Amino acid sequence: MAKITGVKCIRTRRDGSWTIVKVTTDQDGLYGVGSASDMYNPEAVVHVIEQLLAPVIIGRDPANIEDLWNTMSLIGYWRNGAILQTAIGGIDMALWDIKGKEAGLPVYQLLGGASRTAVACYGHAGGRDVEELKEDVHRFVEEGYTVVRCQIGGYGGGGFLSANEAKLPDNAWKTDAVFDEHVYLNAIPKMFEQLRLSFGPEVQFTHDVHEHLSPILAIQLAKRLEPYGLFYLEDVLPPEQIGWYRQLRQQSATPQAVGELFVNPQEWIGLIKERLIDFIRVRVSKAGGISACRKIAALAEAFGVRTAWQEGGENDPVNQAAAVHLDMAVWNFGIQEINHFRPEERDIFPGIIERRGGYLYTNDKPGLGIDLDELKAAQLLDDGWNRASYHRPYSLDRKADGTLVRP
Amino acid sequence: MAKITGVKCIRTRRDGSWTIVKVTTDQDGLYGVGSASDMYNPEAVVHVIEQLLAPVIIGRDPANIEDLWNTMSLIGYWRNGAILQTAIGGIDMALWDIKGKEAGLPVYQLLGGASRTAVACYGHAGGRDVEELKEDVHRFVEEGYTVVRCQIGGYGGGGFLSANEAKLPDNAWKTDAVFDEHVYLNAIPKMFEQLRLSFGPEVQFTHDVHEHLSPILAIQLAKRLEPYGLFYLEDVLPPEQIGWYRQLRQQSATPQAVGELFVNPQEWIGLIKERLIDFIRVRVSKAGGISACRKIAALAEAFGVRTAWQEGGENDPVNQAAAVHLDMAVWNFGIQEINHFRPEERDIFPGIIERRGGYLYTNDKPGLGIDLDELKAAQLLDDGWNRASYHRPYSLDRKADGTLVRP
Amino acid sequence: MAKITGVKCIRTRRDGSWTIVKVTTDQDGLYGVGSASDMYNPEAVVHVIEQLLAPVIIGRDPANIEDLWNTMSLIGYWRNGAILQTAIGGIDMALWDIKGKEAGLPVYQLLGGASRTAVACYGHAGGRDVEELKEDVHRFVEEGYTVVRCQIGGYGGGGFLSANEAKLPDNAWKTDAVFDEHVYLNAIPKMFEQLRLSFGPEVQFTHDVHEHLSPILAIQLAKRLEPYGLFYLEDVLPPEQIGWYRQLRQQSATPQAVGELFVNPQEWIGLIKERLIDFIRVRVSKAGGISACRKIAALAEAFGVRTAWQEGGENDPVNQAAAVHLDMAVWNFGIQEINHFRPEERDIFPGIIERRGGYLYTNDKPGLGIDLDELKAAQLLDDGWNRASYHRPYSLDRKADGTLVRP
Amino acid sequence: MAKITGVKCIRTRRDGSWTIVKVTTDQDGLYGVGSASDMYNPEAVVHVIEQLLAPVIIGRDPANIEDLWNTMSLIGYWRNGAILQTAIGGIDMALWDIKGKEAGLPVYQLLGGASRTAVACYGHAGGRDVEELKEDVHRFVEEGYTVVRCQIGGYGGGGFLSANEAKLPDNAWKTDAVFDEHVYLNAIPKMFEQLRLSFGPEVQFTHDVHEHLSPILAIQLAKRLEPYGLFYLEDVLPPEQIGWYRQLRQQSATPQAVGELFVNPQEWIGLIKERLIDFIRVRVSKAGGISACRKIAALAEAFGVRTAWQEGGENDPVNQAAAVHLDMAVWNFGIQEINHFRPEERDIFPGIIERRGGYLYTNDKPGLGIDLDELKAAQLLDDGWNRASYHRPYSLDRKADGTLVRP
Repeated sequence: MAKITGVKCIRTRRDGSWTIVKVTTDQDGLYGVGSASDMYNPEAVVHVIEQLLAPVIIGRDPANIEDLWNTMSLIGYWRNGAILQTAIGGIDMALWDIKGKEAGLPVYQLLGGASRTAVACYGHAGGRDVEELKEDVHRFVEEGYTVVRCQIGGYGGGGFLSANEAKLPDNAWKTDAVFDEHVYLNAIPKMFEQLRLSFGPEVQFTHDVHEHLSPILAIQLAKRLEPYGLFYLEDVLPPEQIGWYRQLRQQSATPQAVGELFVNPQEWIGLIKERLIDFIRVRVSKAGGISACRKIAALAEAFGVRTAWQEGGENDPVNQAAAVHLDMAVWNFGIQEINHFRPEERDIFPGIIERRGGYLYTNDKPGLGIDLDELKAAQLLDDGWNRASYHRPYSLDRKADGTLVRP
Repeated sequence: MAKITGVKCIRTRRDGSWTIVKVTTDQDGLYGVGSASDMYNPEAVVHVIEQLLAPVIIGRDPANIEDLWNTMSLIGYWRNGAILQTAIGGIDMALWDIKGKEAGLPVYQLLGGASRTAVACYGHAGGRDVEELKEDVHRFVEEGYTVVRCQIGGYGGGGFLSANEAKLPDNAWKTDAVFDEHVYLNAIPKMFEQLRLSFGPEVQFTHDVHEHLSPILAIQLAKRLEPYGLFYLEDVLPPEQIGWYRQLRQQSATPQAVGELFVNPQEWIGLIKERLIDFIRVRVSKAGGISACRKIAALAEAFGVRTAWQEGGENDPVNQAAAVHLDMAVWNFGIQEINHFRPEERDIFPGIIERRGGYLYTNDKPGLGIDLDELKAAQLLDDGWNRASYHRPYSLDRKADGTLVRP
Repeated sequence: MAKITGVKCIRTRRDGSWTIVKVTTDQDGLYGVGSASDMYNPEAVVHVIEQLLAPVIIGRDPANIEDLWNTMSLIGYWRNGAILQTAIGGIDMALWDIKGKEAGLPVYQLLGGASRTAVACYGHAGGRDVEELKEDVHRFVEEGYTVVRCQIGGYGGGGFLSANEAKLPDNAWKTDAVFDEHVYLNAIPKMFEQLRLSFGPEVQFTHDVHEHLSPILAIQLAKRLEPYGLFYLEDVLPPEQIGWYRQLRQQSATPQAVGELFVNPQEWIGLIKERLIDFIRVRVSKAGGISACRKIAALAEAFGVRTAWQEGGENDPVNQAAAVHLDMAVWNFGIQEINHFRPEERDIFPGIIERRGGYLYTNDKPGLGIDLDELKAAQLLDDGWNRASYHRPYSLDRKADGTLVRP
Repeated sequence: MAKITGVKCIRTRRDGSWTIVKVTTDQDGLYGVGSASDMYNPEAVVHVIEQLLAPVIIGRDPANIEDLWNTMSLIGYWRNGAILQTAIGGIDMALWDIKGKEAGLPVYQLLGGASRTAVACYGHAGGRDVEELKEDVHRFVEEGYTVVRCQIGGYGGGGFLSANEAKLPDNAWKTDAVFDEHVYLNAIPKMFEQLRLSFGPEVQFTHDVHEHLSPILAIQLAKRLEPYGLFYLEDVLPPEQIGWYRQLRQQSATPQAVGELFVNPQEWIGLIKERLIDFIRVRVSKAGGISACRKIAALAEAFGVRTAWQEGGENDPVNQAAAVHLDMAVWNFGIQEINHFRPEERDIFPGIIERRGGYLYTNDKPGLGIDLDELKAAQLLDDGWNRASYHRPYSLDRKADGTLVRP
């Protein structure tokens, strides 16, 4: 029986936004890696791992993942929150990595074996306007993608008015641009109309609303987009208003994907059991790791809901590896979001998931098949990270009157 | 501790249709004003205030608004009716005005502070036909409004047939015009078709049905108007038939606003918790004042419903001020209906809410920031008010066979 | 065709708490009487009748009651509130009285004729303690009543602690006694245990909770009283919390009666259509008169709910007459609450309903069969009524910490 | 307009488990205090406050609490988790403290004023067995408490078997005692049977299950305890299984209190709107502070649910003050859990809430009325806190076979 001897957090990426957990054991060379990245609260996650969780798992057998997972979930009394789940998720992945290495098998083999030979993924196309977007979509199609996410004008794109265009109040808070949900509601169907004209029905599209709409306009958008046959519409409602999905489903058959903000079972159980969504999109680390997600996948299978684990954005390669191992094994796999890493970022993760065309491929190494070059990780980390890392990458949008918009 | 020493009702406006409540205290110069206007039953409201409510609050501490509100609600046994709620609402506003003055802060600061810098409002455009209406809408847009209510042909407009056009029975009650809901159902979508042709998607429109339709035609109207992307459709169902909203929502995503006739929690709680409406439109005074409405707003926030407190019509400037203070603070504010006052009416209310462009602005004075010039109030009141005030401004509409139509 | 020529309000009883409406016509001697009593807001009701309603019905044909009822309901825009409904209810009864006189038939004949020969009623037994209560119940049984309402210790009785017994806070608001819902919850089942021991299962009992309980304790009370086989339990929940009846019915089969505070269709429609209550207890005048109540009875019949129109308390003989005419005709009649009038009060109402044993009897005169002796009415009215009438007969109860209790 | 100039976290109590937030402004001497204590993750909370939240609120007007609250909620993308809500809650309280000081009024006055004169509270009685428990209950009753929480044998007490008594498997993990839910299910009703025999129906009892039961046994417990008339039964189901409350309510009228582990609106909205609980027990800081809880209270009021904010345990005096200010104002206040502080702990909080008998009393100072003596706070903090503070006060319970029990 192995024993856990240490739990270490290694921060990397230029801005320190990646946190890799390394769980070491008393067995020679046996360790695992996991992802606990949270670009907004990196040190809070590290603190939870090192001070709350590590003391209760050190000395324990890393093989008993289920028991350790529940111990970690319960030991801090309050649970099902993003920071704690990320910490647990990172450790959980490392434990599965260890188990795979002990078994001499890739993790997806422990999860039931391959249900497919590779993992279909979709890329993020964008542009300042529809013309630029088309070019970007074209590039993805050329590369072999069958599904492409389409956005214009950045985060919340399609819905902004410049301060000049907008009818601001006299005492407006200083602003460059304001979000107008009606502008957005009109822009996006037009965008897809043009995309369909250019690409025909063969290419599959998704779109991410980033929860910027009032609920009834979210329903309207789903209805208006139905003619364009989206692969799915993402985050059309914020986690606080998921109760509106019931109405949305009475009026629209546009496939719905949601979940990257979910951290609490009360957020996903109801939507799945009522069959109100089509793709569950929790981030593997944010939901509590592989242990949590394989159960979510099992629940979703019972109700005909498929997986589309959130990646992209500021996710790291270890989280990606965990997602792709789940994707290989899970019966009701739907699609996998892609990550865009720079070469120097890929370089510090030996065994990183490979993409060829529109597919992602695991390797055949035991465990997650990915490792961390700690030296390179430290080198990549900019000297200034500990000061600069707490930036806010997306500033919050506001309406013309100054009211905050949900991101 | 201050004590309430008096509760006085001051009637004003030429026709006596405005009733302002003034609550005085034993603290030097400390008093508050509130709105208890009910143009149909002004003296009934005054009786309730002076005979039922004043005796139970005089001598009490004006600071304990919540306890006073409930005392007033319960003391007359029957409750949750328009006349009583108006009386309570007027006193409640005055108590919040007093609290703000004691605090040296505008009321919206007591309600949580500013969630925005100004309050977006919508105006009432109208015309005898669509051409006139377009001109009126244009005028509002030029003034800076982003949302405009569009009506044709007066109250119930769009649905009238002249006595000549209508197929009246032989023994028809004498009439100039009759209301035909099928005529109306056809006219309004055409009206919006023409408005969209003229104004494009940028201007936001609302329309007020004044509950003139049978329920299933209300559902049809909501569906037919969906292509025109209304900001909201108002009062498509009467308070007696709100149970039909469930069906309406299964078929239409046209945003729904309702509530100006609501006075009983059983009318709004169900619609909000079931997410069957998008905007709650109770009149602040009719629902029981600021105390009631801040709770309605909190309830609505939990379910993704926004506020659109009823103003316009015969509302007075004090009720407007109460609404705008709520608007400034409430997170889930939606839009504010505008009032159109004459200069001589504005003149008797120092500190009255200002409109510039499409926004309303509070001032920074403590309390509601509005006062009443009692001398001017008395002067404005026509000598004959007490005889003339009981007119009925809107006569009831009837169908060709004489059947009454709900207003 | 007759025409309404006048609508007059006559106040009587020593304290002026009775308001009788008299509708006169242009037909010689043809008039009707109705009840518009509201002891809390008498002048507000009079104002609504004389200023809002009278102008719209004078000159109209009194025979078209349905059209007049809807006109009166809609003409003041806000509707379904106690003061307005009382005003409408008073006029409505007078119109039915007129119609009966025109037909030369008792009103119950116009409502479908007699479904029974007399109207079973229940009396109000009370006492300071159970022993006194038993004596009072015994008296009712001896008189021939088969159903008796049982209360101890006055309004809210059974739940009071003296200031000495209660654990008051240091800064308690001055009080003689406080209401403790747990004391009440324990006292009432004991009361019925003793009543059953004394009276066996033959006598039927009701009990009125006066909405003094938190909802879950209301459910507990209904469960605890089930062994004692009440005829019904009354007002166990306040109008604001009627949503709790669904749960109550899942746990208890104690028959439920409610409605004396209802004035809005949203309050009774749901409870009836979901079969959550067994007796609907609106006051005839407060619900809008005979026209409203015969429809409520029809609705209730569809769902197996019976009538138990509220009487007693401060009701007047005209309201009683209206209730008893409904009782005679309505198929799903349940029981009728009794009024206790003094001889000098009965004396001013020729044709007043008679009670013999446990039954009430109409006479065979046309219309409601009851008239008003205006001279005696004026004599009974104490000189000081216009000052004394605005008392509050029941002061509100408070808990030990000062929190208001719902009445 | 004031500006926020700093946000500081001050840790205190011997073990460092209390974190007090101090928000300073550019106005002379104007600052506020709040509670952000999390004994399990203290430094994670501090990180969130200092690194994520402080940068976005410094320089902003502290008066706009609602906007600041939402900014803080949205700025870290993932939200509605315990660590973030605690951080927000601490700052939110400090902002209300500032607002009260600016107004010169106690916070409860800003929330609507006093609905009662003092706040009824309940104490925690316990003992190794029922005899000891009785003595402890007696002590509370003598002190003037009307409601007492009753537990035996510590956390999870009543359900433990010693290693000798339990039928352990051969290879059992080393243990002193194991939790057996059937033992517990039998013990607790017996405990209350004996308490009722000793104390009669006058004393009100609660019991905290600490989520130790399987759902169907939770329902059984609620049913078995119904004869003993509990004030409420607490945490009979864990947050992951709140969906079972619907069934529980079909079978038992034992009042239900839950919420101290809730941090996500999806956890409380459904239970409240479906009327499945009677008392909502979120911790004020964990739900996001006064801003969040006053909305929860308004939501709960609409559905007849009362408040019972969690205190006790490791809560600090500032959180208690925030709870008691809400208690004073909120109409639907139910009961307040008590805190037991040591004299040297009370000493560092000038203006700390006072208890006399069974009531808690606010003072009349502006704001929360409580301050922090930073020097004493530092002195109380043991030198070794930063090493010792990360202990786990309650070790997790396990069953005979080693399975973890939910705490």
